Amino acid sequence: MDPSVSIFGDWGTSRLRLYLRQGKSVLDRRDGPGVSALTQSPERTFLDLIGDWREAQPSGAILCGMVGSRIGWAEAAYAPCPATAGDLRERVLKIEADGLPVSIIPGLSCINPLGGPDVMRGEETQILGALELDPALKQGRHLLVLPGTHSKWTVVQDGAITGFLTAPVGETFALLRQHSTLAAGVGADVQGSPEGFAMGLARITEKGPAVLSHLLFETRARQLLDALPAADAMGFLSGLLIGADAAAARQWFGDLWRVTLVGAPALNDFYGRAIAAHGGRTVAVDGDSAVLAGLSVLSPQNNSEFHVLA
Amino acid sequence: MDPSVSIFGDWGTSRLRLYLRQGKSVLDRRDGPGVSALTQSPERTFLDLIGDWREAQPSGAILCGMVGSRIGWAEAAYAPCPATAGDLRERVLKIEADGLPVSIIPGLSCINPLGGPDVMRGEETQILGALELDPALKQGRHLLVLPGTHSKWTVVQDGAITGFLTAPVGETFALLRQHSTLAAGVGADVQGSPEGFAMGLARITEKGPAVLSHLLFETRARQLLDALPAADAMGFLSGLLIGADAAAARQWFGDLWRVTLVGAPALNDFYGRAIAAHGGRTVAVDGDSAVLAGLSVLSPQNNSEFHVLA
Repeated sequence: MDPSVSIFGDWGTSRLRLYLRQGKSVLDRRDGPGVSALTQSPERTFLDLIGDWREAQPSGAILCGMVGSRIGWAEAAYAPCPATAGDLRERVLKIEADGLPVSIIPGLSCINPLGGPDVMRGEETQILGALELDPALKQGRHLLVLPGTHSKWTVVQDGAITGFLTAPVGETFALLRQHSTLAAGVGADVQGSPEGFAMGLARITEKGPAVLSHLLFETRARQLLDALPAADAMGFLSGLLIGADAAAARQWFGDLWRVTLVGAPALNDFYGRAIAAHGGRTVAVDGDSAVLAGLSVLSPQNNSEFHVLA
Repeated sequence: MDPSVSIFGDWGTSRLRLYLRQGKSVLDRRDGPGVSALTQSPERTFLDLIGDWREAQPSGAILCGMVGSRIGWAEAAYAPCPATAGDLRERVLKIEADGLPVSIIPGLSCINPLGGPDVMRGEETQILGALELDPALKQGRHLLVLPGTHSKWTVVQDGAITGFLTAPVGETFALLRQHSTLAAGVGADVQGSPEGFAMGLARITEKGPAVLSHLLFETRARQLLDALPAADAMGFLSGLLIGADAAAARQWFGDLWRVTLVGAPALNDFYGRAIAAHGGRTVAVDGDSAVLAGLSVLSPQNNSEFHVLA
């Protein structure tokens, strides 16, 4: 048995990504259903998917994301902030699937900068991975944003996640895009244009995020009165929502306004533009790479973060 | 033939309400599908519904709402603001259905206080009706709000609609309520509680509408971490959205902060609380009564507004 072979998994609400790893290499990859779309038990789904990977005698599996929520496989209670990789490793939930050890990474909770409760599940792994990919982030205080279904503005200090602020930006966009009158008559395959995004971003930057609800309706009115093309309208909607998120975050995190973006390249690009519109600078880290680095640092046998710090 | 018998209709996206009127009395009422839910042509739908009302020999029908949009029966072009009842009467679109004259009231367009294009269709009739129900509104400058799927903050001056500002508040609430993770696991029959509404309104009033997106996620986090009951969570969500609408409107219409609410009683009550949280006073007009009064004043043979002004 080669102890360096193991299974990594990013198991969210809508998607499962499994990787067979050996050291830093990905030997194979398989996709499966998110925890909200399971047709059989999480354990059965997992075992069916890994199938012949067992022949490589993996030492275990480590999973992050909604798999650890109460609608997932087994509930791993939220860890409180501040939290380091070491803190999370200590709180990993250990279960077993057909003799294979499975580690489930807990999510994080905090009181956010608005004084309200906040949670994340899955993003903590990406953030700790981003710190591995850019070790300069382990020293001092830094702001990272993870754009997506729920954007997470996250502060790290000396390698610990100290707090974060969530906005359901991607989810709001998707709902308005799919179901609302703002997108009535817009074909499902129409992608938002960069020109429309720039127009929406300029509007919200000029008028301020306080009037987001009121600017949203311009998406519709501009189509009706100004014959705004559908692709521009969808870009406009996206520019408004992401621009409002960045403008509000600027209020709360303005002293850390050199932001590390951790997400899919296209989303990183949109957030980079929105942060730049508010005078900020950004560097981007690929979200998938960050997940793998995070799962690696959170693996039970891992102690790479201490090597880096040493 | 009694010329005082006529048919009034409020034909929106999701609902048709038809009334058989004689003078100020409603003789009969029938409901039908909105223009987005038709199973046959608008004309056929209309004629089937009015059926035996023809025996009363109505002089004609007058309809407001999305029936006059490009997805309705016939497109009645938007009239520009400022617009009086007289201006709208002149622009009524006249068609015929099986020999019965049918008048379709046009919507309104304006450049709103944010400098963007804006439109309404149906609300203009409610506003002009509210002016009939409370003639004091015909003198001087006043702010009315029509809460609903799309809230419409509307300024009238000396009987003319001079401009308005739209926010898709009810639609956003409905989409988040039905489809989002904020309401995951909340039964479809759960109604928002007044206590939850008050909590959401207090949060957005304290933190300001610029952080609406970020406060929205508290709806979820409070359920997960604080065991907030589902009914309180749904009220909280409603309080945030309506509170943000009122807070932003306060910025733009603060000099007119004695607001006439024109809507369903429950919605009027929510908006009344939100406006009061920002130091405003309100009076309420029932939305259905306002539609009937508006259709009456916009009827081709009507000249009641001149009687009132004389």
